[in-house]
Amino acid sequence: MISRYARPEMSAIWSQASKYRIWFEIEAHGCDALADLGVIPKQAAETIWEKGGAAEFDVARIDAIEREVKHDVIAFLTHLAEFIGEEARFVHQGFTSSDILDTTLSVQLARATDLLLVGMDRVLAALKSRALEHRHTITIGRSHGIHAEPTTFGIKLARFYAEFSRGRDRLLQARDEIAVCAISGAIGTFANIDPAVEAHVAEKMGLSVEPVSSQIIPRDRHAAYFAALGVIASSIENIAVEIRHLQRTEVLEAEEFFSKGQKGSSAMPHKRNPVLTENLTGLARLVRMAVMPAMENVALWHERDISHSSVERGIAPDTTIHLDFALHRLAGVIENLVVYPDKMKANMDRLGGLHNSQRVLLALTQAGEQRESAYRLVQRNAMKVWDMFRDEGGAGDGAFQQLLHQDPEVSALLTADQIDSMFDDAYHLKHVDTIFDRVFD
Amino acid sequence: MISRYARPEMSAIWSQASKYRIWFEIEAHGCDALADLGVIPKQAAETIWEKGGAAEFDVARIDAIEREVKHDVIAFLTHLAEFIGEEARFVHQGFTSSDILDTTLSVQLARATDLLLVGMDRVLAALKSRALEHRHTITIGRSHGIHAEPTTFGIKLARFYAEFSRGRDRLLQARDEIAVCAISGAIGTFANIDPAVEAHVAEKMGLSVEPVSSQIIPRDRHAAYFAALGVIASSIENIAVEIRHLQRTEVLEAEEFFSKGQKGSSAMPHKRNPVLTENLTGLARLVRMAVMPAMENVALWHERDISHSSVERGIAPDTTIHLDFALHRLAGVIENLVVYPDKMKANMDRLGGLHNSQRVLLALTQAGEQRESAYRLVQRNAMKVWDMFRDEGGAGDGAFQQLLHQDPEVSALLTADQIDSMFDDAYHLKHVDTIFDRVFD
Amino acid sequence: MISRYARPEMSAIWSQASKYRIWFEIEAHGCDALADLGVIPKQAAETIWEKGGAAEFDVARIDAIEREVKHDVIAFLTHLAEFIGEEARFVHQGFTSSDILDTTLSVQLARATDLLLVGMDRVLAALKSRALEHRHTITIGRSHGIHAEPTTFGIKLARFYAEFSRGRDRLLQARDEIAVCAISGAIGTFANIDPAVEAHVAEKMGLSVEPVSSQIIPRDRHAAYFAALGVIASSIENIAVEIRHLQRTEVLEAEEFFSKGQKGSSAMPHKRNPVLTENLTGLARLVRMAVMPAMENVALWHERDISHSSVERGIAPDTTIHLDFALHRLAGVIENLVVYPDKMKANMDRLGGLHNSQRVLLALTQAGEQRESAYRLVQRNAMKVWDMFRDEGGAGDGAFQQLLHQDPEVSALLTADQIDSMFDDAYHLKHVDTIFDRVFD
Amino acid sequence: MISRYARPEMSAIWSQASKYRIWFEIEAHGCDALADLGVIPKQAAETIWEKGGAAEFDVARIDAIEREVKHDVIAFLTHLAEFIGEEARFVHQGFTSSDILDTTLSVQLARATDLLLVGMDRVLAALKSRALEHRHTITIGRSHGIHAEPTTFGIKLARFYAEFSRGRDRLLQARDEIAVCAISGAIGTFANIDPAVEAHVAEKMGLSVEPVSSQIIPRDRHAAYFAALGVIASSIENIAVEIRHLQRTEVLEAEEFFSKGQKGSSAMPHKRNPVLTENLTGLARLVRMAVMPAMENVALWHERDISHSSVERGIAPDTTIHLDFALHRLAGVIENLVVYPDKMKANMDRLGGLHNSQRVLLALTQAGEQRESAYRLVQRNAMKVWDMFRDEGGAGDGAFQQLLHQDPEVSALLTADQIDSMFDDAYHLKHVDTIFDRVFD
Repeated sequence: MISRYARPEMSAIWSQASKYRIWFEIEAHGCDALADLGVIPKQAAETIWEKGGAAEFDVARIDAIEREVKHDVIAFLTHLAEFIGEEARFVHQGFTSSDILDTTLSVQLARATDLLLVGMDRVLAALKSRALEHRHTITIGRSHGIHAEPTTFGIKLARFYAEFSRGRDRLLQARDEIAVCAISGAIGTFANIDPAVEAHVAEKMGLSVEPVSSQIIPRDRHAAYFAALGVIASSIENIAVEIRHLQRTEVLEAEEFFSKGQKGSSAMPHKRNPVLTENLTGLARLVRMAVMPAMENVALWHERDISHSSVERGIAPDTTIHLDFALHRLAGVIENLVVYPDKMKANMDRLGGLHNSQRVLLALTQAGEQRESAYRLVQRNAMKVWDMFRDEGGAGDGAFQQLLHQDPEVSALLTADQIDSMFDDAYHLKHVDTIFDRVFD
Repeated sequence: MISRYARPEMSAIWSQASKYRIWFEIEAHGCDALADLGVIPKQAAETIWEKGGAAEFDVARIDAIEREVKHDVIAFLTHLAEFIGEEARFVHQGFTSSDILDTTLSVQLARATDLLLVGMDRVLAALKSRALEHRHTITIGRSHGIHAEPTTFGIKLARFYAEFSRGRDRLLQARDEIAVCAISGAIGTFANIDPAVEAHVAEKMGLSVEPVSSQIIPRDRHAAYFAALGVIASSIENIAVEIRHLQRTEVLEAEEFFSKGQKGSSAMPHKRNPVLTENLTGLARLVRMAVMPAMENVALWHERDISHSSVERGIAPDTTIHLDFALHRLAGVIENLVVYPDKMKANMDRLGGLHNSQRVLLALTQAGEQRESAYRLVQRNAMKVWDMFRDEGGAGDGAFQQLLHQDPEVSALLTADQIDSMFDDAYHLKHVDTIFDRVFD
Repeated sequence: MISRYARPEMSAIWSQASKYRIWFEIEAHGCDALADLGVIPKQAAETIWEKGGAAEFDVARIDAIEREVKHDVIAFLTHLAEFIGEEARFVHQGFTSSDILDTTLSVQLARATDLLLVGMDRVLAALKSRALEHRHTITIGRSHGIHAEPTTFGIKLARFYAEFSRGRDRLLQARDEIAVCAISGAIGTFANIDPAVEAHVAEKMGLSVEPVSSQIIPRDRHAAYFAALGVIASSIENIAVEIRHLQRTEVLEAEEFFSKGQKGSSAMPHKRNPVLTENLTGLARLVRMAVMPAMENVALWHERDISHSSVERGIAPDTTIHLDFALHRLAGVIENLVVYPDKMKANMDRLGGLHNSQRVLLALTQAGEQRESAYRLVQRNAMKVWDMFRDEGGAGDGAFQQLLHQDPEVSALLTADQIDSMFDDAYHLKHVDTIFDRVFD
Repeated sequence: MISRYARPEMSAIWSQASKYRIWFEIEAHGCDALADLGVIPKQAAETIWEKGGAAEFDVARIDAIEREVKHDVIAFLTHLAEFIGEEARFVHQGFTSSDILDTTLSVQLARATDLLLVGMDRVLAALKSRALEHRHTITIGRSHGIHAEPTTFGIKLARFYAEFSRGRDRLLQARDEIAVCAISGAIGTFANIDPAVEAHVAEKMGLSVEPVSSQIIPRDRHAAYFAALGVIASSIENIAVEIRHLQRTEVLEAEEFFSKGQKGSSAMPHKRNPVLTENLTGLARLVRMAVMPAMENVALWHERDISHSSVERGIAPDTTIHLDFALHRLAGVIENLVVYPDKMKANMDRLGGLHNSQRVLLALTQAGEQRESAYRLVQRNAMKVWDMFRDEGGAGDGAFQQLLHQDPEVSALLTADQIDSMFDDAYHLKHVDTIFDRVFD
């Protein structure tokens, strides 16, 4: 975990203190269930809650015990006994370490997902608000990095909103995948622990019961979980790349907020760099790299081997922490994004109306020209505009329109008025509301 | 695509012929919608269906045209015109190539998924049937590859059944992700095509409408799709690895069916190798390798760049074809798996009852011994059994039980009857039905 | 393998015909060695070369036999016997199938690598030639997508040349990794075949001897091989992304060659898209996706399991074929790249000399100003230029220079001449030759 | 970075303190070179070394400054000035932050690699020593997990030794890839810094000079570096998987050292689990997961974007730290591995001599039988042995030999003596020394 890419709320979920608190709760709820079953005295369960609930576990002390006994759960139970005393022997009856460890991982991942959902919602809110703000802000649509036809900046953001809505759904499904409890004993057969214990702990910890575990919760769940996070990371990259493009010097249609006193570069005082979205691009890679090892973790030997454990010690905190940070960084970028509608319009118009080429093409075909030769007519004028644009740094207002007027073959097919009528940008935006209705319903 | 790992049903979905047929259908349905809107004559749409529907497209001919015009969709339309004649000019009005290409990919992926679901169901049926057959077939559970406590072979299979049920759910969700239609024009604004066309084609092709496309359908959908397939592949690997372990010479509790006349090795006539499950292990890697590029495909430039296309030309057919093949190979392996219950029992018993060590430990604690010293008592006897097992090729029936009887510290705490009562395997299996009820309800 | 991304030379290496020819050669060389050892008659070896060398193997016939005997090597040997007759029984004496299969894979990969080296050399030649051509073509260097300081287009290309030189070295090392021969029998112990056979075949096939094989050649070699290809693919992506950036409408400093009659888009006749470099970006992902499964192939069970085989049936041909295609496509792009030096200069100058901000900063510090306040002085003027640039579509010639003249705090520190002297672009290019000498020595 | 998988020596390389010390050294060496060039006073350079060399940098103080100025290098320089005083203004003249940051990363990676080489050497030494010890320890070779023919445990280890020798070579090459220095200014043109400074710093820091940098060192180098580490991790997994197999209960031919007082499981006192090699299997995945993002880092925008930075903040320390830990853990496992030669022999013999089936097959062919029917003869007897093995827990000494004697078709071809002569295990080991000579020369 890279501390500069961590928010304290998420880090807290993965702290040693949180982990031990969850361990305690699982054990204590387990005691309640065991007491109900008559396996241990009711009084013991009460004492455990009382004294353990009030305890402040000493991480250093547990570490010290672990160095001695070389077993983390036993170390914790030993420390717990220091608070609870005599009745400590009723704790952990019939449990296996994995019952505690795997269920705790589920609780942590579920809580982490709840925080991720908060981040997603912040991104969604920012996207929606800015999309509505720029619903009609015209800008050139680009395919292959080349000017194509107009769209609006709001539609761009609506597209990202729809993508993040899907990401949110996937995150909810991913939460369901891993919010499961398994307390089924050494090999998953409940030989030494009643299934009722599992059911009770699951309910209390807000988890569902794993139908069939084998000492551990099956790892296809975790693979699906990290895959969902990987897709969300890719969507973050998608927005980040868009903004980086918009900010590049020659485009400059939008910029990350650049605060007073900020420095873009220690060497070059003129610099204003999209460092946040570049950073998000990198964070996306970091989140995504967990997907492959999570999938490799699925095929464990027989009822379990422990190869997945070291992997998860890394990717479970790191991936959720970095994604959480990235979501909030992204939300901030969107909320504060400085948008230049005039520059958008100016950039679009620097190609002298070329973005209407399809419309002219269709008009020529409707005027009876074969598609092939109509294409040739439009293309030969368009190419001239490109040359003007390249050589003169801008094609000049209405350059394409003018050339069409001057082309005898074109004017044989279309009247001057017809030509002019095709250079009306509103034409391209007539379905903006349709799209917005679909997305924001 | 590796032809030896392809079933004809799935390959057919990805054939050129299938692709052109889908292209035609999208175009023809589009014409219906355009006719309804009055953009083209009703008669034209009818002719297109009639003549195009009857046409047998000539792939070689289309290839020849493409070599000339260097555009696949235009090549197809030219060929189509050869069947339809004059009215061909009403086809593709206001469409962009991507409208056809992307919607076709959706159709192909959706159909591929339907086939994958058939494969999943065959695997599930095989797992269920064999699980029920072996519900009570006792076998040693192994954690870390080491004997732990008994379970049943049916529980193993039930576990895989539950895993594949989750995989099936993920596959259904994945299908929803990609079964979408986009016919929205050059940049997704419907500038030259009415949204009604998209709605009509979507309905006819069994797709839902993409709320906001940008010439193309957003690639987070495809990333999520291939990720779901990657998780399923990992589950296939999970079963494959289990069977490979069970078949290894020293274990030999189950075997892939070995047909009369089959040869395990050209050199060594005694060999019987689990080649199908080894092959499945490799196929899992092949399927999984699509996940990363699919995620890298998400962040396209602005309204689209075409970098995703070459990737998908590879992974869309290859991944679905290989996974389809793998599912049927796996189903066959499970259906025909030769299981050796006696060998399972014999293997388990070669450790002289050691699998009851936890039970003895718990009994000693219940008899008042501290957990730590009880552990020591059990462990010191267990370690002797290991030595016997290793040195003599089997610990001998009841070896552990006998040692416990002979250990004065143990017998001071437990009566002979108490010790003996702990060597009853039924104890471990008392909750088998609970587990089966959970899984097969 | 995607046939449209395949060149016939490379595909031929992976054809069935090539494979059988290599199989034959390994067997026949093996016979020579066996004859030398006196294991088989010299005459037999000669007959085998004579009749087998002249044979045209019938792939369909071998397939038919394989369907019967279910073993590819046996099927081939049976077909070979149809040519050789009686003496066929001397073929394959003491060999294991893997001896043939693995050594053949080595031969194919080595030959594929030789072709890849041809592609690399073509890319290197193109880069060098264009680098020398544009050694002094000034262009703005961009960090974070934002104008920084001037460089030359030749330096950009020299940088890529150096990167591809490293890639070429890696490819040579990768070739060494996999150009190895193993003919060591069932488990690598030479129990039934003399090591001299291996040595002879290795020499004849242009391979080195695997020091210790275990039925198969260890797969760390192949993992290293595909990793090297993955890095080269990433370098291809690196150039591709650069060109895509240079071609984007707002930049347009270079363009992929656009042939007369070419169509950028079926719908929009004005389009000129960098489709080749976009395609290369995707191909890079395809090549790279082989790295992970190749690494997963390393850890096989004991002396070998066959899980690697299906993976390699896919990635060995596909990855080399796609990379080969990509290298030649890239070389073509570079060779034919249309470069616009005037546009490069014009773009650079649209920021009114801002690229000299560091130089001004250093001059102010040398003039005694603290770095912090010097930075503030430069930045406040630079930010005004940005505003002009954004609002007016270009900052105007010398805008930054003028502002500095007008800033009283600046002119208190620097004379007008001093300020003007800092707007000399040659300053930035004084070490171009140093860099070229380093790269092209 | 997971602290439990970190050794202090490696962690120290990545500490903030180490980083700042390297920063200082680069700056100070740079000052020497600048002084030689006459850019700054010689006295200043001396003072900087003297005061800075003696300084103990206060990480917390630097963090505090960074929070204010939001730039890590500036924060450091500010703190450095607190020690150096007045002459601090001569530090960093003409440098760009990346000059410091990228060269520091090179130094850290180079030092990390030196430590990794120590780990590799320890692994190699352990493998060699144990290989020599077990040069003649006979054990069954297994392909597909199934008994094949005999080999020795020493050959297994020699195979791993050869694999790690290759890994060591790759690591040396990887070190060369990244041990480079770039001090070339804002965009790599040396506009404000003389190349002599770079040359001097490179020499002093033990690096070579990057021929052409672009503010940063090109990232194909780092991609190649992490790929090399990924292959080594896969080799670690390879050994780990072998040992896990050897330790599984039914095999038990070797065991990780199990210390007195160690506990295999908190619940089951009889357990002895190969937890170290399982852990290594997981660590291999963690190391390998850096390969893909490192490759994605190669294609940066123009002269650089900063997306690679966050990735490297994670993978550079984490991957080297985890791999370093893994190498030492692996070395310890090999050094202390408990090997059971008797169990190896006993396991091999439980199949009643079946491992000689190829030899019998070859003898029958040499006796004039067609290969096909000879195969049938051997196989039909071999399959009986399998049945005995499975049903009776061991086929009985000489079972296969006896069956061959009793088979009339076999005994028609081979005399009793001939049959018996084929059950001599020394036959399989006659080339052990050849192999050892190849590996350990």
